Amino acid sequence: MVQITDMLGDRDVKRADGRAVDALRPVTITRNFTDVPEGSVLIQCGNTKVMCTATFTAGVPRWRKDSGLGWVTAEYAMLPRATAERTDRESVRGKIGGRTHEISRLIGRCLRGVVDMKALGENQVQIDCDVLQADGGTRTASITGAYVALVDALRWAEKHRHIRSAKRVLKDSVSAVSVGVINGVPMLDLPYIEDSAAMTDMNVAMTGSGDFIEIQGTAEHRPFSRAELGTLLDLAEKGNRELQAAQQAALAE
Amino acid sequence: MVQITDMLGDRDVKRADGRAVDALRPVTITRNFTDVPEGSVLIQCGNTKVMCTATFTAGVPRWRKDSGLGWVTAEYAMLPRATAERTDRESVRGKIGGRTHEISRLIGRCLRGVVDMKALGENQVQIDCDVLQADGGTRTASITGAYVALVDALRWAEKHRHIRSAKRVLKDSVSAVSVGVINGVPMLDLPYIEDSAAMTDMNVAMTGSGDFIEIQGTAEHRPFSRAELGTLLDLAEKGNRELQAAQQAALAE
Amino acid sequence: MVQITDMLGDRDVKRADGRAVDALRPVTITRNFTDVPEGSVLIQCGNTKVMCTATFTAGVPRWRKDSGLGWVTAEYAMLPRATAERTDRESVRGKIGGRTHEISRLIGRCLRGVVDMKALGENQVQIDCDVLQADGGTRTASITGAYVALVDALRWAEKHRHIRSAKRVLKDSVSAVSVGVINGVPMLDLPYIEDSAAMTDMNVAMTGSGDFIEIQGTAEHRPFSRAELGTLLDLAEKGNRELQAAQQAALAE
Amino acid sequence: MVQITDMLGDRDVKRADGRAVDALRPVTITRNFTDVPEGSVLIQCGNTKVMCTATFTAGVPRWRKDSGLGWVTAEYAMLPRATAERTDRESVRGKIGGRTHEISRLIGRCLRGVVDMKALGENQVQIDCDVLQADGGTRTASITGAYVALVDALRWAEKHRHIRSAKRVLKDSVSAVSVGVINGVPMLDLPYIEDSAAMTDMNVAMTGSGDFIEIQGTAEHRPFSRAELGTLLDLAEKGNRELQAAQQAALAE
Amino acid sequence: MVQITDMLGDRDVKRADGRAVDALRPVTITRNFTDVPEGSVLIQCGNTKVMCTATFTAGVPRWRKDSGLGWVTAEYAMLPRATAERTDRESVRGKIGGRTHEISRLIGRCLRGVVDMKALGENQVQIDCDVLQADGGTRTASITGAYVALVDALRWAEKHRHIRSAKRVLKDSVSAVSVGVINGVPMLDLPYIEDSAAMTDMNVAMTGSGDFIEIQGTAEHRPFSRAELGTLLDLAEKGNRELQAAQQAALAE
Amino acid sequence: MVQITDMLGDRDVKRADGRAVDALRPVTITRNFTDVPEGSVLIQCGNTKVMCTATFTAGVPRWRKDSGLGWVTAEYAMLPRATAERTDRESVRGKIGGRTHEISRLIGRCLRGVVDMKALGENQVQIDCDVLQADGGTRTASITGAYVALVDALRWAEKHRHIRSAKRVLKDSVSAVSVGVINGVPMLDLPYIEDSAAMTDMNVAMTGSGDFIEIQGTAEHRPFSRAELGTLLDLAEKGNRELQAAQQAALAE
Repeated sequence: MVQITDMLGDRDVKRADGRAVDALRPVTITRNFTDVPEGSVLIQCGNTKVMCTATFTAGVPRWRKDSGLGWVTAEYAMLPRATAERTDRESVRGKIGGRTHEISRLIGRCLRGVVDMKALGENQVQIDCDVLQADGGTRTASITGAYVALVDALRWAEKHRHIRSAKRVLKDSVSAVSVGVINGVPMLDLPYIEDSAAMTDMNVAMTGSGDFIEIQGTAEHRPFSRAELGTLLDLAEKGNRELQAAQQAALAE
Repeated sequence: MVQITDMLGDRDVKRADGRAVDALRPVTITRNFTDVPEGSVLIQCGNTKVMCTATFTAGVPRWRKDSGLGWVTAEYAMLPRATAERTDRESVRGKIGGRTHEISRLIGRCLRGVVDMKALGENQVQIDCDVLQADGGTRTASITGAYVALVDALRWAEKHRHIRSAKRVLKDSVSAVSVGVINGVPMLDLPYIEDSAAMTDMNVAMTGSGDFIEIQGTAEHRPFSRAELGTLLDLAEKGNRELQAAQQAALAE
Repeated sequence: MVQITDMLGDRDVKRADGRAVDALRPVTITRNFTDVPEGSVLIQCGNTKVMCTATFTAGVPRWRKDSGLGWVTAEYAMLPRATAERTDRESVRGKIGGRTHEISRLIGRCLRGVVDMKALGENQVQIDCDVLQADGGTRTASITGAYVALVDALRWAEKHRHIRSAKRVLKDSVSAVSVGVINGVPMLDLPYIEDSAAMTDMNVAMTGSGDFIEIQGTAEHRPFSRAELGTLLDLAEKGNRELQAAQQAALAE
Repeated sequence: MVQITDMLGDRDVKRADGRAVDALRPVTITRNFTDVPEGSVLIQCGNTKVMCTATFTAGVPRWRKDSGLGWVTAEYAMLPRATAERTDRESVRGKIGGRTHEISRLIGRCLRGVVDMKALGENQVQIDCDVLQADGGTRTASITGAYVALVDALRWAEKHRHIRSAKRVLKDSVSAVSVGVINGVPMLDLPYIEDSAAMTDMNVAMTGSGDFIEIQGTAEHRPFSRAELGTLLDLAEKGNRELQAAQQAALAE
Repeated sequence: MVQITDMLGDRDVKRADGRAVDALRPVTITRNFTDVPEGSVLIQCGNTKVMCTATFTAGVPRWRKDSGLGWVTAEYAMLPRATAERTDRESVRGKIGGRTHEISRLIGRCLRGVVDMKALGENQVQIDCDVLQADGGTRTASITGAYVALVDALRWAEKHRHIRSAKRVLKDSVSAVSVGVINGVPMLDLPYIEDSAAMTDMNVAMTGSGDFIEIQGTAEHRPFSRAELGTLLDLAEKGNRELQAAQQAALAE
Repeated sequence: MVQITDMLGDRDVKRADGRAVDALRPVTITRNFTDVPEGSVLIQCGNTKVMCTATFTAGVPRWRKDSGLGWVTAEYAMLPRATAERTDRESVRGKIGGRTHEISRLIGRCLRGVVDMKALGENQVQIDCDVLQADGGTRTASITGAYVALVDALRWAEKHRHIRSAKRVLKDSVSAVSVGVINGVPMLDLPYIEDSAAMTDMNVAMTGSGDFIEIQGTAEHRPFSRAELGTLLDLAEKGNRELQAAQQAALAE
């Protein structure tokens, strides 16, 4: 990524954890984390830990019946003590917050973006991403982990003859990473401490082929220019390539 | 926008409403649409009509007290018959859907992106965007209209000496527009019929200075390349410039 | 209305807006306020503005199936900034308040009171009354406006051959008006300032033939005598006759 | 009630339970039905049985504080098997239905209509009306019974020196009864079988002095004329006089 | 119960109501308390009064269809003024509390424990236990009373030929009683004043044959030894034998 | 446990997993499973895996203020794919089910049973038990694991000087285990396959000193005799002794 370091020049950037501005946190992807689900993955990105399960069910929701098409949906949640201060359970509050809704919908869209619904047939995959520990980037870790759980569930479905071929259902792979501008410096893969200080904050989901599935950039604290956007996308491309390598490695085991 | 029409070349693109690919729908911004709120705006973008009110209140929510900072928040909703088929009221269903939450949060972030919370002081502005008629682009019309309502509410507050100066509170202006790729052609300002056919769909909020506040691009139906992203951003810049002219014209009356 | 002014004698009654005690506020009924609904009406009674839509759907709710009868139902709501102080959305609070329930049910009963369910056949009309601005009399304005929207929806249904004849479905017309006793003086059509000062407060819905569909009189602050009731009903008859003339004029356009 | 039987002339009216058209069902009012509440009454009107308790508490809700005024409120509910077919509990459904809300509010208004809030001081009385068995007229029986429970609670409060005098708090007494038109014949005090067949249905709450507190007349099935209204009010006056006699008798024990 | 008094020896135990440690409070079981339900029982245990109704319906919930088996379920609730201080209604709060859920489930299990689901066939009995007055032991009184209501509902069903024989459906009878350790002394059938002072608190449901259906012992305030457990179970056996005699006597009337 | 095997005699009992009737499943207790909570434990009992966190907070809920006493509370939940078939999230359904409530309350009582609230002072410990994988005994595993997390949280509080001494706060230790009768044979520590076949099912929480904190025995499918109860309690005592050894071993690390 020559241009990134070039852009940053010789500025003396120090990240709390000593990483370079364009470096990912260590990623670990554990398959078969629990025994029962068709796909069950624990993904760790630095101190962020998310358990992603994929549930394959024959049949689709009512509104989708007799369409010949499948469906993929996702739900995201945080355990109460995933965070430094305990968060009340949404079940106890009796309603789901806006942030949770937003992230669940994002994960669902990203996975649907790489699934051929016709090849899936009238079957459904439900993704559940439960954050065991949160240190920034929980939504992007969820997407990256969920893809692996999805593959496992589709392989299971192929083996049990619910679908003809997992490969045909998957048009591509998908991963996601966060980037942001902290104190004027674009950086890759923000932990909580950086995320909360970011002026601009962007989540980028990309396919294995290098195209975009989702870009969500927010600049509540300082608008960003088109040039900054360019650098952030360069960082995101680099990060996603590395995450996709980690996904492939895990799936090859 | 030379490069856009260049890119599209001599392809024979027909939009249902006869517009050029880089043309906005007609925009009308009516201030003082109702009498009571501090700011009350009806914005029409083609057949989309949104009523945006801004409520100025002295004081801030509890979690913000004694910070010396103000707060701006927003809520979005659709009237049941804003759409071709009647939508059940969220009050009747007893819960707010994910889409509503997502849009409310988006509007709030965009407006906060141009507000100097210190200059606002411990005062709150609550934005309400209620869609009377929906024909695509309701969230972007909400942002564009809400900015005008916000200015009116701040002017009211200045006049009633709740704040020193509306101008100081506003760091910049903000507007938003949708862009998307339909049958492979990037287009500006999608009505419902195009929106539902879009492979890629992006909402872009920009400041008067031409920087980005929010970019939300979704490619559930076909990933988009970095080159396409570039064209979409060009279209969004053009659209936002024109919307900001309409905002200034309305505010000058 | 000889007897009313007689009864009031030469007492020097001043209403804030200069009206006579038996005078309505100015009424405007705008049809086709929005484009999509089968019936869409904006009614203004003084500063009260209500948007009334009527949604015609083939088929009836499950409990009504195979009865050969139609159904008409209504929902009422206030936009958050219809009032001087912002009211929290019922969707956000997660439940519908008693007042909203009460008014929705009232509107539904009034409209059903003039509909021949057999002539309607197994079709449903859903009325939505959304208050854009509230200055007293929102429930009675809703009924008066909703009737016009209902007629438009039935005419649409006749034109599209869902029903044989809109006229046959409508047994009569219906309108409603508020009356009340303020400082001992019976008055017609109370704005908010009078309504909140009323000792007795009554909403009266009447048919075009001059019969009653609903009478709801409340005397939380001072009981009323049978003689006062008589005067209030006289006022309500006069008001409803005038409102019905406004309905007919609007429908004749 | 000479005029009523006159009006009905020699028409041969048969009521299922053999009553005259202007006759109440047998009324029984049992005080101290349970031991703990400050007021606890079981009222039976025919087969309708309602348990009414009155809870006296020092202090008022927050919005009423430092006003020097008291508050009276009411809640109505039906036990699941009060009706012929079991009704689901509103607690299980997670929300209160419109009918329940409507009736709770009605009962509260009727009682507040006879209470001097200044004399009550900053104290609250909460009325609970729980229908053990429902055979028509549950809301009017609730009002009639609740008044007796209210008196007991105020006497308790006087005895325990929370208020100076129960008599001063009570400006008047209040009772309520239903009337309706069945097959063209006005009748008093409708059991369920008549209520469900009524074309017009009216609940009338009156003070001991013979004035009106609430009139709620509904003519969903056939509008009623002003003459019919007159007869219905005559019947209601007769019924309420008799119910007030029963209240006084019970309170004298 | 020789061993119990032996165990307690000559200790001078005084209960507030003068009862012996192994004595029940007076029990009254009134059948046909209301007219409509298939079974309707008022049970009084001391000052605790619970209305228990049993609703027999042909058919079972969806998840049980085509199993050939019946279903018995129960719901428990307290009227707001059953207690010394008024409790908010769960319908108003919009959700059912944990305690209510816990007790409803307990009652259901106890009754199912004596019902032969095959003999019941695809029919459902819904038990409703509503506490009119609470003075300790409401859940055990509910079980004891509900059994009698269940028998009545099954006899009704036999008479109306929904089932062949009530006797075959009932494998046994069931009753329940509370026991506890107060100041170190094991006691039978605790009123509220003892219950709230208990170190250990146990509810024991037993069949007519003397076996256990449910044991729920809680020692939040002081753990109990196996020896104490033995004494508590002796007391519970004695209490249940006496309650079963009262059930049989009521059913024989 | 001589008497247990004696009682079972030479009957040929085969458990699916080959265990003896009085043998526990393998238990693993991992402390510091996540980094942030004051106590964080993963407990595995066979295939059942529960994550237990303990959150220590200075201060108590409002109703407990100025009492000088602390508070311990617990919440239990299952991840959607902890079970063979996916369970809908309670947050999505908008309410907490009865089973969840019941178990949360049970865990809270068991822990409070060994805590000296005075020694804890006005501090609160919130326990969260989230089931990652469910194979029977999730509530008992939760109690056993939660105790270890509680100890860690109290040690943390001692170290950070919120309390004087963790040891003084803990009056005893607590663990829990399930026992049941399957095909007439009493057994210890039931996995799901046995649990669902159990005629009698009992959860027993005991202190380190061998006393009982909770006994919950249910015999929905076949009542149990006092003799069977004795055997079940023998098994539970044996199981709890072994679980307490595992707790001590984990805490000693």
